[in-house]
Amino acid sequence: MSQAKTRIAAVMDEIRLRIASRSYLPGTRLPSVRAQAKAMTVSVSTVVEAYERLAAEGVIHSRPGSGFFVSGPVAPLALSEMGPKREREIDPLWISRQSLESNASTLMPGCGWLPDSWMYEAGLRRALRTVARADSSVLADYATPLGLPALREVLARRMIGSGIEVPPEQIMLTESGTQAIDLICRFLLEPGDVVLVDDPCYFNFHALLKAHRVRIVGIPYTPSGPDLDAFSAALNTLSPRLYITNSGIHNPTGATLSATTAHRLLSLAERSDLVIVEDDIFADFEVTPAPRLAAFDGLSRVIHLGSFSKTLSASLRCGYIAARADWIDSLLDLKIATSFGGGNLAANVVMSALTDSGYRKHIESVRLKLAKAMVTTVERLETLDIRPWHTPQAGMFIWCRIPKGRDAADIARACLQAGVVLAPGNAFSQSQSAGDFLRFNVAQCGDDRIFQTLARVLSS
Amino acid sequence: MSQAKTRIAAVMDEIRLRIASRSYLPGTRLPSVRAQAKAMTVSVSTVVEAYERLAAEGVIHSRPGSGFFVSGPVAPLALSEMGPKREREIDPLWISRQSLESNASTLMPGCGWLPDSWMYEAGLRRALRTVARADSSVLADYATPLGLPALREVLARRMIGSGIEVPPEQIMLTESGTQAIDLICRFLLEPGDVVLVDDPCYFNFHALLKAHRVRIVGIPYTPSGPDLDAFSAALNTLSPRLYITNSGIHNPTGATLSATTAHRLLSLAERSDLVIVEDDIFADFEVTPAPRLAAFDGLSRVIHLGSFSKTLSASLRCGYIAARADWIDSLLDLKIATSFGGGNLAANVVMSALTDSGYRKHIESVRLKLAKAMVTTVERLETLDIRPWHTPQAGMFIWCRIPKGRDAADIARACLQAGVVLAPGNAFSQSQSAGDFLRFNVAQCGDDRIFQTLARVLSS
Repeated sequence: MSQAKTRIAAVMDEIRLRIASRSYLPGTRLPSVRAQAKAMTVSVSTVVEAYERLAAEGVIHSRPGSGFFVSGPVAPLALSEMGPKREREIDPLWISRQSLESNASTLMPGCGWLPDSWMYEAGLRRALRTVARADSSVLADYATPLGLPALREVLARRMIGSGIEVPPEQIMLTESGTQAIDLICRFLLEPGDVVLVDDPCYFNFHALLKAHRVRIVGIPYTPSGPDLDAFSAALNTLSPRLYITNSGIHNPTGATLSATTAHRLLSLAERSDLVIVEDDIFADFEVTPAPRLAAFDGLSRVIHLGSFSKTLSASLRCGYIAARADWIDSLLDLKIATSFGGGNLAANVVMSALTDSGYRKHIESVRLKLAKAMVTTVERLETLDIRPWHTPQAGMFIWCRIPKGRDAADIARACLQAGVVLAPGNAFSQSQSAGDFLRFNVAQCGDDRIFQTLARVLSS
Repeated sequence: MSQAKTRIAAVMDEIRLRIASRSYLPGTRLPSVRAQAKAMTVSVSTVVEAYERLAAEGVIHSRPGSGFFVSGPVAPLALSEMGPKREREIDPLWISRQSLESNASTLMPGCGWLPDSWMYEAGLRRALRTVARADSSVLADYATPLGLPALREVLARRMIGSGIEVPPEQIMLTESGTQAIDLICRFLLEPGDVVLVDDPCYFNFHALLKAHRVRIVGIPYTPSGPDLDAFSAALNTLSPRLYITNSGIHNPTGATLSATTAHRLLSLAERSDLVIVEDDIFADFEVTPAPRLAAFDGLSRVIHLGSFSKTLSASLRCGYIAARADWIDSLLDLKIATSFGGGNLAANVVMSALTDSGYRKHIESVRLKLAKAMVTTVERLETLDIRPWHTPQAGMFIWCRIPKGRDAADIARACLQAGVVLAPGNAFSQSQSAGDFLRFNVAQCGDDRIFQTLARVLSS
């Protein structure tokens, strides 16, 4: 293709992308040829030709004397066509699908959950048998609007352990932790709002926020929480609406928020009227509880949430939100409108398993196994010159720097060929500045073939 | 309060409402005092006073020389404050909460589901015990992206019975039927789009669409489907994006779409590039299968969906969507982004119960019981001069006209005092033209006290 042809195609692609991502809506006028040429730093004739071709395709149409307009109807929302294209190895949507699709023979040191054999299997089987004998209303009925009262009481008691005082009426059960965040986004966000996330952060936050069509801004994460200078600068220049974080054990770094950082962060948030979402999904893995923003703030501007996917079962969907009473009331309307009742059966199984006398022992044994696996995995990775950025106090994740000059996406691609699914750093990084990092899940690193494959790929 | 004070308060309320419903966004300029006065048919001085008071409250602020602006940040989305205020007896959000809250002693002839004792209890208990013995991956793992392959195969075979040919790869499991519709709305709609619904229709469609901030337009429903003249006129004047309906057994009328209407409806939709969502949640209650839009159209512009809440269990959340392959692909990205995996455990329980040899017999016996209850309930209601608008072929609903001159919301309010929850017509009607209708669920009408209460209220 000639250079001119390439440039015309690039302009056409960019305009198609803007239509697909709905930044150009049907019926709106495209920028003038001259303005577009200046904005895209191409010649006027390139834009003229691109507009004419798109008009010939019916994507846009001209109105004599008034310019070019986007043809309707509005394009369906295709997340995969929104925002800059990423290689699939670091594309949040692709990674989620890949991890969910993988079968038992795949090795998954990059995945975000425990192996089946580490979960509370005996307890779950017991809970299912208990529920199989429960009242017919447990088996057949919709849940009450807020969800199973007994489970909300248990959650309120558990939260006291993290310093969060909240009555059960201010806790709403959801279908999952992800649904909990999604409801909060619906409640608080408008397309175009700015949302702060940690850089790096859990990759599905990027996909979820993309679905809400907000502007995602990453704040560099340090071993004691977000970088406060960057956080403060973002508050001053971007007026963000929301900040989403994990404050117990951070995904993917395994770091923990310090009390000083938590306090300063909240003071900044108060001055800027910023709402904070604290996803506490890894709470049960903690050995020494870290400070919780919700505890410091008393659930005034912090919304606290979690689920049981990491500790009990990801197959049973159940999550929760604790928030201000008036916010819970509006979130409840949104939950009923968009998913009607919650999963009453799932809530009953969770309740039965959580209050089973064996659960605490099970979690203690998981913590011990994780601590041992952490030591072993760090040692084995260090022999490959893969080094932890920070040594986590607890949890399943370590965030590691790979040998100098190598690219994590390349390594992930090569390892995938050998049936080893890795989690390359840029999948977690909004700024794409983590190309030399990999996240490892120590609970999924028991198999020698992982290190053999890594060694082979690194030496090639 | 003086009349002037009342007018000022009314203008202030209206502006607060527009800010709450985000039709006035933070940072935007309010209409000039003169324009606002004209639009609201009040005096200029009333608007001046209202603006000043709102500015004193900090809701808006003035910039000298350029007018009044909405103060930020954007208000959280409160469904209950959006759109015209309705009495709570006919407010979709209130009715949903009320039905979900009600306890075992409440009589619920207005509710939308079967009594527990009519559900497939023995089968569900068996299915739960089966799943309690399943592989640990069934108990603990996330579902695959599309959801349990075996269940999708069963659904594909069931749909063939309704004339819908669809491969299992074009079926995606969801957390519920409501989530299925919500994902489709996210995929296809922009705030401000026009969506057609039946008038009357299932009341939660109103709440769900309100959450998507679209313009809801009701099309009068006839005993053979939507009124085609009104439908055609709406297509010509409003360019709707979507039409949501039930084509098997219609909620709340119990009517069935005729083949002629289905065919003409689809021809109209094709000419106007309208997408149709067909919610088939009552399919299993049908005695003679009605035509399905998805069967006529071959899943080109029709999206077909359903769930198991009405026949198996509402406590187990599981629904499905069948649609064009490219749409399923985008819907899958949206599902993962906003709820991550689906409920693998729920899908396994549904699968086990549906394929149990007893399920078909159970459903046949439910159909018989419904047919008998339909006859008895119609007879009993007729003695109270409450008459069916149409005699349904099957299902649990009858849509009845109450005695002349009475108001269904008043009757519902009075019956609620006596512990009887009714479903007044206007809860289902976008145009609020069903004030003389009630929806009865014949499966919930077995208790004499319902008719005694109705008789007492009607004679008072």
